[in-house]
Amino acid sequence: MYFSKSFIPILKNNPTEAKIKSHQLMLRTGMIKQSSAGIYSWLPLGFRIMKKIEQIVREEQNRVGVQEILMPTIQSSDIWKESGRYDDYGEEMLRIKDRQNREMLYGPTNEELVTEIFRSSIKSYKSLPQLLYHIQWKFRDELRPRFGIMRCREFYMKDAYSFDISDEEALHSYNKFFLSYLNTFKRMDLSAIPMAADTGPIGGNLSHEFIILADTGESKIFTDKRIFEVDSSKTTIEKNSLNKLRENFEKYYSVTDEKFNQIEFEKNVPEKYRLQTKGIEVGHIFYFGDKYSKPMNASVDYNGKKEFVKMGSYGVGVSRLVGAIIEAKYDEKNETMKWPMSVTPYDCSILPIVNKNDNSNLEIATNIYNSLKKNNIDVLIDDTDENISSKIKKFKLLGIPFQIIIGKNFNEQKIEFTEINHDPIFISIDEIIKKIKSKKSH
Amino acid sequence: MYFSKSFIPILKNNPTEAKIKSHQLMLRTGMIKQSSAGIYSWLPLGFRIMKKIEQIVREEQNRVGVQEILMPTIQSSDIWKESGRYDDYGEEMLRIKDRQNREMLYGPTNEELVTEIFRSSIKSYKSLPQLLYHIQWKFRDELRPRFGIMRCREFYMKDAYSFDISDEEALHSYNKFFLSYLNTFKRMDLSAIPMAADTGPIGGNLSHEFIILADTGESKIFTDKRIFEVDSSKTTIEKNSLNKLRENFEKYYSVTDEKFNQIEFEKNVPEKYRLQTKGIEVGHIFYFGDKYSKPMNASVDYNGKKEFVKMGSYGVGVSRLVGAIIEAKYDEKNETMKWPMSVTPYDCSILPIVNKNDNSNLEIATNIYNSLKKNNIDVLIDDTDENISSKIKKFKLLGIPFQIIIGKNFNEQKIEFTEINHDPIFISIDEIIKKIKSKKSH
Repeated sequence: MYFSKSFIPILKNNPTEAKIKSHQLMLRTGMIKQSSAGIYSWLPLGFRIMKKIEQIVREEQNRVGVQEILMPTIQSSDIWKESGRYDDYGEEMLRIKDRQNREMLYGPTNEELVTEIFRSSIKSYKSLPQLLYHIQWKFRDELRPRFGIMRCREFYMKDAYSFDISDEEALHSYNKFFLSYLNTFKRMDLSAIPMAADTGPIGGNLSHEFIILADTGESKIFTDKRIFEVDSSKTTIEKNSLNKLRENFEKYYSVTDEKFNQIEFEKNVPEKYRLQTKGIEVGHIFYFGDKYSKPMNASVDYNGKKEFVKMGSYGVGVSRLVGAIIEAKYDEKNETMKWPMSVTPYDCSILPIVNKNDNSNLEIATNIYNSLKKNNIDVLIDDTDENISSKIKKFKLLGIPFQIIIGKNFNEQKIEFTEINHDPIFISIDEIIKKIKSKKSH
Repeated sequence: MYFSKSFIPILKNNPTEAKIKSHQLMLRTGMIKQSSAGIYSWLPLGFRIMKKIEQIVREEQNRVGVQEILMPTIQSSDIWKESGRYDDYGEEMLRIKDRQNREMLYGPTNEELVTEIFRSSIKSYKSLPQLLYHIQWKFRDELRPRFGIMRCREFYMKDAYSFDISDEEALHSYNKFFLSYLNTFKRMDLSAIPMAADTGPIGGNLSHEFIILADTGESKIFTDKRIFEVDSSKTTIEKNSLNKLRENFEKYYSVTDEKFNQIEFEKNVPEKYRLQTKGIEVGHIFYFGDKYSKPMNASVDYNGKKEFVKMGSYGVGVSRLVGAIIEAKYDEKNETMKWPMSVTPYDCSILPIVNKNDNSNLEIATNIYNSLKKNNIDVLIDDTDENISSKIKKFKLLGIPFQIIIGKNFNEQKIEFTEINHDPIFISIDEIIKKIKSKKSH
């Protein structure tokens, strides 16, 4: 893709309305564009990142045996009256009347609708467990949307739901998501800590938030540093293995301010391990038993007896993760972003010095582009006539991890190649391809 | 995937509310579930098909150089007032007031929003052409939604938009989509005819519908049979090549009833080539010049002069295509469906005779499953204790193209293998893998 033909509208300066770094960077590099308060369009650069995040989330759900479905955005109010949440939800629910004057709403979450699908499809405990997820747009009519896509109104979310016959089985399902979330965030190069959390409007009796550290986070967190060392790499989805993982995490004190208690913190955490900082919630899991299945009559036959199924729900903020990664990785002072290889919109940029009456560097760039493409490396060529230092600056902002610079005296055995935040090296195209591929497969 | 653990809720009989075969089959095989009038959830079987269709549509857009973005579902009414369509659109537009009493709407189409994005991003003709698409949910508040997902309210659509400096360039963009659509439908094993069409509420002066033949179609069509022989396989996206393709199609009379004229039909089409039948619209492309760019002031600088950009829009009904493929392929009399390999939810089913106290066939099935999986073949094992003839019947309905039957006297050199609509053959697992793989790569 040539930069001059791409749809990446870059702003010269940070827009004044943006208060946090993800909002600034996303507007400045043309990743998103606001269409109305708290509602955004995703332009090609931001879209590519979000799609890669979505695909990682999908693969990790599939890996633990969750089946993908897709529920609609618009729901009938009837099922929300059955559960009792229609009145409780308040003004954050976007309520709609259709042309027949029926009460509809834009789904802020899907416990009711998925319970309705379950109860009309599954009759016997032999079909349990059922784990279902979908990745769909949600709407919450925030009074004061802010921070760009971090607290917006229309947002993209993965929400999953589990249905089990007993508390014990339901806990096993819960733990599968616990592991799956650790793996999901790890693949995005994020270190997310699971923290015991309040259950809030979803209800229930067990809940964890997954929080990544970031100075600009909205949640205050209090944690034992040793929690970062807990190893989940050998955990399988067997019951005992998952229980052990949960135990290993729960050894260490780790809470958000809602649950914070100074005395317990000091009692349980030796001073040198105490960490008090801020974080961003990127995932939230809940176990709530029969809170929805009972009022909505979602039961299965269990040897002739009717049993209400035990449910949990499990959310990951897909669009929010784009912002969260920026908050965690963007170096504001040096105006340098570096996208993790797993989600980067392009793997490499090619930055030729382009002179008005001399196409030779652009031709070299195009040849290199073709070689990289053949190796499944995604490349953006900056074919504009900006000077090379402003091109380098621009691409540090865009965060594409690798840069190839094509200047005077091009030598194909010694091509200038830079990984963002590293010094340039001078190597051949084959070595460049090898380096990028090894980072991609990592 | 074991059938007993899958979420494929099959109905014993056709639901009486479904009047056409796609609606019947989709409900009966648990592909979709209605959540309210004209609004559906997609269950795993239907979801897998729709996702494959979406991916084909995406790849063919990318191939002709269209860039993917994603606009939100909820739009502000302001831009629709600028274009003048807010009042025109009528009751099919789902109008919404948010908590601040702002007038919003659920986008039925995106000409206004994409024009707003364009005008605030692109300033010079040098950045043209710009071709943008997104695949997003739309809502049209049909008075009488019917025929399942064929005429529903919330539907999934690919809509693309082109921006050019002149009519000539715009026509070149139009023709790229023309070719892209032929390729898109061909990959789904559909023979879609481009037909000159009215422009309707989108407006403009040039338009084609892409129609597939189906007895249950909503559009009457009148066509010259020779149009099916027009070959687009050697067309490139160069101007001359595309113009030639358009000419080759336009040689033959081919219209829907809106444009039908008996005298012209008889004058232009020799009797033996006349075909009068029904069809389903699966794509629609429009060229409308400055219809939106002028009222919305979307212009670029062209050597110091301000020029309104020339626009077109291009839609493919992604969710609708699932139904359209069924209408084209489902043999209602024999209750047999066969999904095209490019969109099938699974490539192959394994149907073992399962006896209560004997797991041996299920073990054989699982071994074969693992061999197929290693070769990237997607498989569904029917591990239930239904008898084999009802399993075969069920899988003819599900439409998975290949079946492996495991009965008495299993012989690994002579496994019973059936392609739907063909007689069974008896071959080894290696030969089965070879056969399926060759169909997949076709």
